[in-house]
Amino acid sequence: MSEDEAEIRRLIDQWHAATRAGDIPTVLGLMTDDVVFQVPGRPPFGKAEFESMSRASAGASQPRIDAEQHIDELRVLGDFACVRSSLRIVITPPDGAPLVRVGTTLTLFRRESDRWLLARDANLLATVGQ
Amino acid sequence: MSEDEAEIRRLIDQWHAATRAGDIPTVLGLMTDDVVFQVPGRPPFGKAEFESMSRASAGASQPRIDAEQHIDELRVLGDFACVRSSLRIVITPPDGAPLVRVGTTLTLFRRESDRWLLARDANLLATVGQ
Repeated sequence: MSEDEAEIRRLIDQWHAATRAGDIPTVLGLMTDDVVFQVPGRPPFGKAEFESMSRASAGASQPRIDAEQHIDELRVLGDFACVRSSLRIVITPPDGAPLVRVGTTLTLFRRESDRWLLARDANLLATVGQ
Repeated sequence: MSEDEAEIRRLIDQWHAATRAGDIPTVLGLMTDDVVFQVPGRPPFGKAEFESMSRASAGASQPRIDAEQHIDELRVLGDFACVRSSLRIVITPPDGAPLVRVGTTLTLFRRESDRWLLARDANLLATVGQ
């Protein structure tokens, strides 16, 4: 495994750990300022909207988010990298039944000042049950 | 506009024209052999499955497919290119009401033997009405 690949895998692990811990500043530090998130059924959104959505769901009623991600493909293309993955997320509200979302992702990472950051993310998760 | 960007835009136009005409061999010639298509709610699939789905929907009962695609971003990264787009597809069966699907895409193109080809495609379209 190349050092670039290892760094990108560490970034993904760090993203999940910070998300699980509700550590929004760390997650925001893992993406470019011009990041674009794409999900089905709504327009693409950027870093500011990601942050406000994260803060809105934080607090006492914050759901627990557990993610299992399998990297299906990781290719480094110079200062860019392309990652395909399979993802299973379980969202458990403090007083409700868990929601399970399953699907795949297509993500582009970009190297900026010798750090890899998430730059474009297409998230094709669908809800499979509660 | 660079020559690479112009070529990728021509490929996308050609894809839509061939799809509208039901010209499956031409569409297949615009993708790499290892292409991966990602859509919500099902596992990723490749060229053989794309072809068999296309042939299954061909024939007398073939729906008419009209697509309007707006390129939101196109970046050439050496022998790769990343394209984000907004897409609206109207699928009209010969004897039924049209189905409208709207959303965005994230696509990677790869240069092979001096030709650009579609290599990875995340399609985040959702049905918005009939």
